[in-house]
Amino acid sequence: MTSSRTSDRSAPPDIPSPGLADIEQAREGLRLVAVVTPLLRSTELDERTGGRVLIKPEVLQRTGSFKFRGAYNKISRLGEVERRRGVVAFSSGNHAQGVAAAARLLGAPATIVMPADAPAIKVANTRALGAEVVLYDRARQDREAIAAGIVRERGATLVRPYDDPDVIAGQGTIGLEIADQAAEFGLTPDLLLAPCGGGGLISGLALAIKGRRPQTEVIAVEPVGFDDTGRSLRAGERVRNALGDVSFCDALMAPTPGLITFAINRRLLSGGVAVTDEETATAMAFAFRALKLVVEPGGAVALAAVLTGKISCAGRVVALVLSGGNVDPETFAAALARAGSEASTPRR
Amino acid sequence: MTSSRTSDRSAPPDIPSPGLADIEQAREGLRLVAVVTPLLRSTELDERTGGRVLIKPEVLQRTGSFKFRGAYNKISRLGEVERRRGVVAFSSGNHAQGVAAAARLLGAPATIVMPADAPAIKVANTRALGAEVVLYDRARQDREAIAAGIVRERGATLVRPYDDPDVIAGQGTIGLEIADQAAEFGLTPDLLLAPCGGGGLISGLALAIKGRRPQTEVIAVEPVGFDDTGRSLRAGERVRNALGDVSFCDALMAPTPGLITFAINRRLLSGGVAVTDEETATAMAFAFRALKLVVEPGGAVALAAVLTGKISCAGRVVALVLSGGNVDPETFAAALARAGSEASTPRR
Repeated sequence: MTSSRTSDRSAPPDIPSPGLADIEQAREGLRLVAVVTPLLRSTELDERTGGRVLIKPEVLQRTGSFKFRGAYNKISRLGEVERRRGVVAFSSGNHAQGVAAAARLLGAPATIVMPADAPAIKVANTRALGAEVVLYDRARQDREAIAAGIVRERGATLVRPYDDPDVIAGQGTIGLEIADQAAEFGLTPDLLLAPCGGGGLISGLALAIKGRRPQTEVIAVEPVGFDDTGRSLRAGERVRNALGDVSFCDALMAPTPGLITFAINRRLLSGGVAVTDEETATAMAFAFRALKLVVEPGGAVALAAVLTGKISCAGRVVALVLSGGNVDPETFAAALARAGSEASTPRR
Repeated sequence: MTSSRTSDRSAPPDIPSPGLADIEQAREGLRLVAVVTPLLRSTELDERTGGRVLIKPEVLQRTGSFKFRGAYNKISRLGEVERRRGVVAFSSGNHAQGVAAAARLLGAPATIVMPADAPAIKVANTRALGAEVVLYDRARQDREAIAAGIVRERGATLVRPYDDPDVIAGQGTIGLEIADQAAEFGLTPDLLLAPCGGGGLISGLALAIKGRRPQTEVIAVEPVGFDDTGRSLRAGERVRNALGDVSFCDALMAPTPGLITFAINRRLLSGGVAVTDEETATAMAFAFRALKLVVEPGGAVALAAVLTGKISCAGRVVALVLSGGNVDPETFAAALARAGSEASTPRR
C-alpha cells in the first residue's frame, strides 16, 4: 500500500467534479430503479483478517454490475430533446449493458458500438435490451470515431464509461449506501476498497464516503499490469499501461486514468494496490464458497487484496465492493479449478 | 400443482406445533446472530414469468443455508444445565453445519454423527466449527442408535433436522422477513414457494406467512422421486420415497415427511410440485447468470418450478426461497454445463 503525496501540477482548476449534493441527488433518482444492494458480512472473513469486513455486492445490481447506476444518472439528467435524440456508448461489457438498460427505462434510443468479433451472445443480449448495435472492424476502424460520427449525425449524447461527472455521481451512490448500511450494524468504515479501471467507481465512492467522514481511507485495487491508477498516484501524473496487454480482469482494462477521475483520485485516495490473476481467481473461489456470490475477475480484486493481506484489516472496519458478476461459466469454472481447495471447503 | 383436501385422520390432536408468537420470539433471538437475508428482484424473471417474483436467498445465511436459524433457536431455548451437557445431531450436510455453528455461539458442546466415508473436507470443517465428530460405518451401524447412545450417556440433547417445534419456529423467521421486506416494496405475496425435504422449512414458512395473512398460498417443491410431501398431501397420510434412491438434490433426501411437519403442512399447504434434475440444473444456471448467486441443487427447486412454468406466476406476487448454496465446484460446473446456453447469456 502506497500513500499518494503528489503535487497539484496535473490537476487543472477547470476539471469538473461532482459534489456530495450531486451524489445525494443521484441516489434520489435511482431510488425506484436500482437495487439497493445489501451490505453483507462473513464470520469467516472477519476471523481470517482480524477485522470487520463489510461486503457490498454490486453483482446483485441490475445488469449484474455497478455500471447501471452511473449510466442511469447520466441519461436521466439529459433534457427531453437530448433524450429523444438518443445516447451512444462503445463497450462490449458491463458499461454497454448498463447504458442499454438505463436508456430503455428512460425512453432514450441507445446505440452501442461493438466489435464485429464480439461474442454473438453479447450482441444478442444488447439488442434484447432494446439497443441498436453498430458493429465495427477492430483491426481497421476506430470505435471512438464511429461513436463521434453518430453523435454528430443524430445529435446523440455520448455516455462515457467513467470520465463524466454524472457517471461518477451515479457510482458514488454506492458509497452513501455503504455509510448508511454500516451504521445499521453500528459500524463506521475506516477503510474503503474497490476495483479500479478508469476510476469512475473509486472516485465516486471517495467523494461520497469522505464527504460524509473525511478521515475514511480509500484505496484503489487493480490487476498487476493494469495498475495505472496506483502508478499514476505515485508518479503524481497520469501514466499509461503497456500497450497490447490483455488482463484476466477484462472489466479493468482502461489504458490510463480518466482526466476527471484522476483529478479526484489524486486528491482523495490513499493509494493503489495491485493483485495477480492467481490471487483474483482465489478470491473468486472464496466468494463462491464462503459468500455464495458469483463475481467476475475484475469484480473480485478488492476482495483479493484483503484475502492476501496486501491490505491489512486487523482491528479495522473495512468496506469493499464486489463490482460485477458477468462472467461466462467456462471462465468461472476455470477460476474455481485454479484456486484448488479454496473452492471446495464447506462454508463455516 | 395439486390442491390438498385431505381428511384429518393422520393428525392426532397431541402433535405439537409452534404458533406465530413462537416464530416472533425466535426472530428476536436470532436478531444479532443470523443474517437478515435481503429480498431480491430480477427484471428478467418478472418479464419471463409475467409475475412479480421475490427471491429470498438463504444461501447468504450463516453456514450457507437456512438450517442455522432452526438449530440456533432450538439450542438457545435449552436451559443452562442442558446446554452444558451438549447437543447431538446426525447429518453430514447443512444441518450439521447449522448445529455446529449455533452450538459454538451458544457455548454448548456439539457432537455430530457422520459416516466414516463422508468427504474428509466436511469432517474437517465440522471440526473447524468446534464440533466433536463421531464417525460410524454406514453399512453396519445405525446413526440414530449412536446418537441415542450419546444422548443417554451424556444427557445431551438431540437436535432433529426438522421434526421439532423449536426448529420449525426458527425456519419460520424467514416467512416473517419475507412479509416485512415485501411490504417495503409495497407488495404482499399471493404465493410462497420453498424447497421441501423433511418439511421443516415449508411448515415454518406456512405458519409465519399464513399467521400474518391467511389467504397466502404455500406450495412445497421437491425433486421427482423424492416428492414424499406432495404425494402425502394428496394421499392424506404420510407416504415414503422408494428406498435406496439418491437424488441430485442431496439436501432433500428425507425418506418421508416428519410427523410434526406433516401435521402442519396438511393443514396449511395448497399442494406440492416436483421438478426434474434437468430443471434444477437449469435453475442453478439461471441463478448463476441472472441472479449472481451460488445455489446448491436442493436449494434451487422452487426457482425451477417457476422457470418451468409448473407454477404459474402470471399476475401474481410470488415469493420463493433459495434455501442453500453448499455445493462443490465440480457439481456446480457440471450443472452449468448441463444447462448449456442458459448459463452463458449475459445478464439483463
